[in-house]
Amino acid sequence: MNSSFDPSLPSPFRTPEQRRQERHDKREAVLRAAVRMFNARGFHATSLEDVAASLGISKPTLYHYLGNKDQVLLECVKRGLSELRKAADDAADMPGNGLDRLRIFLRRYAEVNMDDFGRCVIRTGDEALSDDSAMRFRALKSEIDQAMRALVEAGMADGSIAAGDVKLVSFTLAGALNWPARWHTPDGALPSSEIAAAMVDVLTAGLAPRAA
Amino acid sequence: MNSSFDPSLPSPFRTPEQRRQERHDKREAVLRAAVRMFNARGFHATSLEDVAASLGISKPTLYHYLGNKDQVLLECVKRGLSELRKAADDAADMPGNGLDRLRIFLRRYAEVNMDDFGRCVIRTGDEALSDDSAMRFRALKSEIDQAMRALVEAGMADGSIAAGDVKLVSFTLAGALNWPARWHTPDGALPSSEIAAAMVDVLTAGLAPRAA
Repeated sequence: MNSSFDPSLPSPFRTPEQRRQERHDKREAVLRAAVRMFNARGFHATSLEDVAASLGISKPTLYHYLGNKDQVLLECVKRGLSELRKAADDAADMPGNGLDRLRIFLRRYAEVNMDDFGRCVIRTGDEALSDDSAMRFRALKSEIDQAMRALVEAGMADGSIAAGDVKLVSFTLAGALNWPARWHTPDGALPSSEIAAAMVDVLTAGLAPRAA
Repeated sequence: MNSSFDPSLPSPFRTPEQRRQERHDKREAVLRAAVRMFNARGFHATSLEDVAASLGISKPTLYHYLGNKDQVLLECVKRGLSELRKAADDAADMPGNGLDRLRIFLRRYAEVNMDDFGRCVIRTGDEALSDDSAMRFRALKSEIDQAMRALVEAGMADGSIAAGDVKLVSFTLAGALNWPARWHTPDGALPSSEIAAAMVDVLTAGLAPRAA
């Protein structure tokens, strides 16, 4: 048989897999552009038209990938919260005592909060979202709170963390490590991993000098 | 001489001093109503009409006391920052070592952040203010940062605070104690003074247990 079709030649037609990948990449690019604009300008001051324009696409095209502004914001904070969720799960599986595992989580927690999606979690108030989305946002944030408390509690139980009020200790840690989302800029002198490690050391050791 | 005027009788006409006081009280009431609505609903979702309505006055009357929305917000954050400024100045005048003075400041700092005007300082992003107001806001916030760093530095100098990066330690403390502005509600179980004291104890002692 004679055929002019040679499957090894490059085809201008994409495979289903390539199309899925391309769609995924486009969606990621739109989401990244949106979260950066939300973080830089504030949610209220950002229009999806500006996000679309920054990518050279139309607003309907952006809509096609991500939906309306509330849906885009919810997707951004869900992404950040899922990075934090993964950090908690990874830390819980690590060897060492409770304090060791908590420190691993806290360093990653701080790093995520200095990155695009984590920053968006911190900077987004409930009032920016629709009622349904705000409820979902609160539920996911609460999961992270619970995960942090579980790690603190485990450390107090094995004696590697000084006894105390689990909830209050967790809020103190979370506050300290949420704050970089408001002052850290990616072009700062120190990489976020170093800032995160140094902050966790301060929180572990405390202010008062320790006996040598 | 005979006069029917007896200055000891109550007069329906107010003295200049009474008028000044009344004007002051009205301005305070308007400011307090505004800051509470900003904190509860968010700045963007609050209209000065609603603030005026909550006091049973007209929007022009509110304008007369406080000016436009940008001016009202600037006045609210200036009020919070001046409470923090006073806390720093008071602490610097206290006896004890550097850590003692820093702890006094930090407790008061946390308390202010759980009160109306301090909460507004934390919850207000630069983007909510006009360019001029945002510049003034940043300058005042920077004064508080500097005051905290000076107290940390003094403690490191006299050995009551463990040596470290002054700026990073200060940001860690500020973050932890700014955070209650986002979760604490005035009707919570613990008074803000107790929360503040307990958080400052955690930050002073750190997570790791100390040798007995």
